[in-house]
Amino acid sequence: MGKSDRRGRTPPLDFVAGNGVINRRALLGQGIALAGAAGVGGTVTGAAAEPLKDEAWSLEFGSVMQPREMPSRYEKDVVRSLSNPKGELRNSHARTPHHLLNGTITPNPLHFGINHAGVPDIDPAKHKLVIHGMVRQPLEFTLETLSRYPLVTRMAFVECAGNSAPMFSAEPMQVTAQAIHGLVSNAEWSGVPLSVLLDEAGIDPKAKWLVAEGADAHFLDRSIPVKKAYDDALVAIYQNGEHLMPANGYPMRLLVPGYQGNMNVKFLRRLKAVEQPAYTYFETKNYSQVLPGGKTWRFHFLMEVKSFITHPSFGHSLKEPGFYTISGVAYSGTGRIARVMVSADGGKSWGEAALQGPVHPQAFTRFTMPWRWDGQPAVLQSRAWDEAGNVQPLRAEFVAARGQASKPVASPLLFPNQHYNSITSWGIDSKGEIKHVYA
Amino acid sequence: MGKSDRRGRTPPLDFVAGNGVINRRALLGQGIALAGAAGVGGTVTGAAAEPLKDEAWSLEFGSVMQPREMPSRYEKDVVRSLSNPKGELRNSHARTPHHLLNGTITPNPLHFGINHAGVPDIDPAKHKLVIHGMVRQPLEFTLETLSRYPLVTRMAFVECAGNSAPMFSAEPMQVTAQAIHGLVSNAEWSGVPLSVLLDEAGIDPKAKWLVAEGADAHFLDRSIPVKKAYDDALVAIYQNGEHLMPANGYPMRLLVPGYQGNMNVKFLRRLKAVEQPAYTYFETKNYSQVLPGGKTWRFHFLMEVKSFITHPSFGHSLKEPGFYTISGVAYSGTGRIARVMVSADGGKSWGEAALQGPVHPQAFTRFTMPWRWDGQPAVLQSRAWDEAGNVQPLRAEFVAARGQASKPVASPLLFPNQHYNSITSWGIDSKGEIKHVYA
Repeated sequence: MGKSDRRGRTPPLDFVAGNGVINRRALLGQGIALAGAAGVGGTVTGAAAEPLKDEAWSLEFGSVMQPREMPSRYEKDVVRSLSNPKGELRNSHARTPHHLLNGTITPNPLHFGINHAGVPDIDPAKHKLVIHGMVRQPLEFTLETLSRYPLVTRMAFVECAGNSAPMFSAEPMQVTAQAIHGLVSNAEWSGVPLSVLLDEAGIDPKAKWLVAEGADAHFLDRSIPVKKAYDDALVAIYQNGEHLMPANGYPMRLLVPGYQGNMNVKFLRRLKAVEQPAYTYFETKNYSQVLPGGKTWRFHFLMEVKSFITHPSFGHSLKEPGFYTISGVAYSGTGRIARVMVSADGGKSWGEAALQGPVHPQAFTRFTMPWRWDGQPAVLQSRAWDEAGNVQPLRAEFVAARGQASKPVASPLLFPNQHYNSITSWGIDSKGEIKHVYA
Repeated sequence: MGKSDRRGRTPPLDFVAGNGVINRRALLGQGIALAGAAGVGGTVTGAAAEPLKDEAWSLEFGSVMQPREMPSRYEKDVVRSLSNPKGELRNSHARTPHHLLNGTITPNPLHFGINHAGVPDIDPAKHKLVIHGMVRQPLEFTLETLSRYPLVTRMAFVECAGNSAPMFSAEPMQVTAQAIHGLVSNAEWSGVPLSVLLDEAGIDPKAKWLVAEGADAHFLDRSIPVKKAYDDALVAIYQNGEHLMPANGYPMRLLVPGYQGNMNVKFLRRLKAVEQPAYTYFETKNYSQVLPGGKTWRFHFLMEVKSFITHPSFGHSLKEPGFYTISGVAYSGTGRIARVMVSADGGKSWGEAALQGPVHPQAFTRFTMPWRWDGQPAVLQSRAWDEAGNVQPLRAEFVAARGQASKPVASPLLFPNQHYNSITSWGIDSKGEIKHVYA
């Protein structure tokens, strides 16, 4: 403990909030003692008194590389959790294991997916996207023709409106960040600006909506404002550098940054320009937000500012008092994250976390906060602000406005509600065990 | 051709260089005719005269999602090419298929790998990193202890010094960008700044070098300047959000941004602080650059400014005259890319490409250039500048300074030379077939 730095100083830690939250600008290496003393002679001669142990893998030639590499067998738990693993004829969810990931990118094999009619097996040479309706000239695009436009590449999160629905449970569910928040992921998308394609078709100025339709067996369709199409929408054909994953819309999907997940219509086969929204099943029933009292948010597109802590969180444990980093992701459908505050005492006091730059709009921002755990109970929380000044609501105010289930929810799959963007709290007991708590 | 825009105008194309190179700021949708007329009734009533064809995949429930998703079966060619697929007891290379990728991220399964003694199967619970030598207190780190530090997340390319070695052939080899340039990839890495760990160990100010050693069966080792360690080196433990891939150093590797690939020591198990470099095999023999006349670049670490066109390139063909996008990647070990110029007439005239931002230092920058192919022969080239003013050399000047093989190289695996950063030229004939040419 209290190891001195390169010049032999041992400065005090700079605590900025209660229960061990340390100034994010604190120089690390000062007062942090994580490493064990090594079993080698540590002298300026550099002579190792005791050689490093050579493990089995250093004593034999290793394995052959594969055309597509897979993770180590020791990473077998780093997978998506499935709501419908047997492929029953209903919707299915695959959730991202946020508690086991870091950085900002979600690897393609782990990007969340929701499909209402399974994953279609689309031949990209036959798939077409048609733009029609109120246009001067209806047009037809293939993956090959889209690939010939100058592509735009950008980071963006995609989040299901029903993500975090377990947080509407009357009692905190004892499940991981994956089970609670696994229906959001973040990737680098490359595609053609939709504005370019609409200009080419010559959209009628009286057309205010586009009905976007996918080629899955439900022909999932949503109405998209033409204004959004011209702001920043893409027809995406690459995800983190390679063509889209099948469950993420191969060979092409709509990307409407910051809008609820199902509007980013996958397997996109049709955009019809119209004057009025289509009032499809997926916008009037499935993804309409019923409020307490019975009023409904219909055409409520934006995914609001949000953050959650991934490390440490449910499923981890702290093995000893000492130094840790509190880390998580923050994002907002409105734009860039401006600030994340972290508390270790259940919201009594807060310190400002470091944001990993560059901060992209409508994309994950990783935050980190140095923390010394003293072995006493603690409650970890994060709270995010975006550049427009929107702030993640505290749980009490959120529940007052939006309600919660009258009894505990039996399964994270039953979501009585949507658009949860309030705070997540991880309670740590004196043994270092972590529970999901409401605070 | 010459379709009018949303307001009915049909402006002329703004050519900025010979052979069809269009101003990168040109509004797209103007003068671009890629889409076919759609087989639907295109009237402002929006009524489709002829419905879209419903393909087989729209008429039946799709497949079930998997815990780790795999690409579509139609993407089976998007894989790494292997130099040693049977795992013979020699080095092996797995090359990134740049001609089939886009954006800037290399997906983890496709990140290039070179291993001199196969891929070790390391148990992360047993692996240790020791920092010793000229330090006040030798220290030992595990994956668990490293995970407790505040991690830094950044984009960075890693490039083998021998990447692009086929360009030293006396005649241009007729192979893809993957075969030529596949030993560079780009990822988001998360890890602990090495400066933090060295401060914690208390490195002696007289120590100017670190001998970094991997846990592979060769104990691959390289000497790293302490100055670089303090500038921007990381001990990386995540790659694009998940733990490192086995062939990329699982569970931990050194990341020395912009320095030649093998210095980013994988399976990192030891950093020994010393006064003088160790003159290891991998720095005096394997990765020393022999110059014409016999002088040698030893401890020449930097990967110089470079770019290459990925679309269109060898392995593609242009099916008809018309609009295309010339696109590729640029990067520099020195810092950020400042400018990329593109030529369609073999270097006689150049236009400035659009750079996809944000531009990260020591990372891939995707460039795009709109281009109208008139059906005549063309030679496509790109040339990059970095923020320090370094420029990618023309081929004639590069060969004069660095030489080339006296006869064609039989295989891209035989590299007589290293650190190729000159220009790549793709020649297009009147049938739209693409060859690798020297120009």
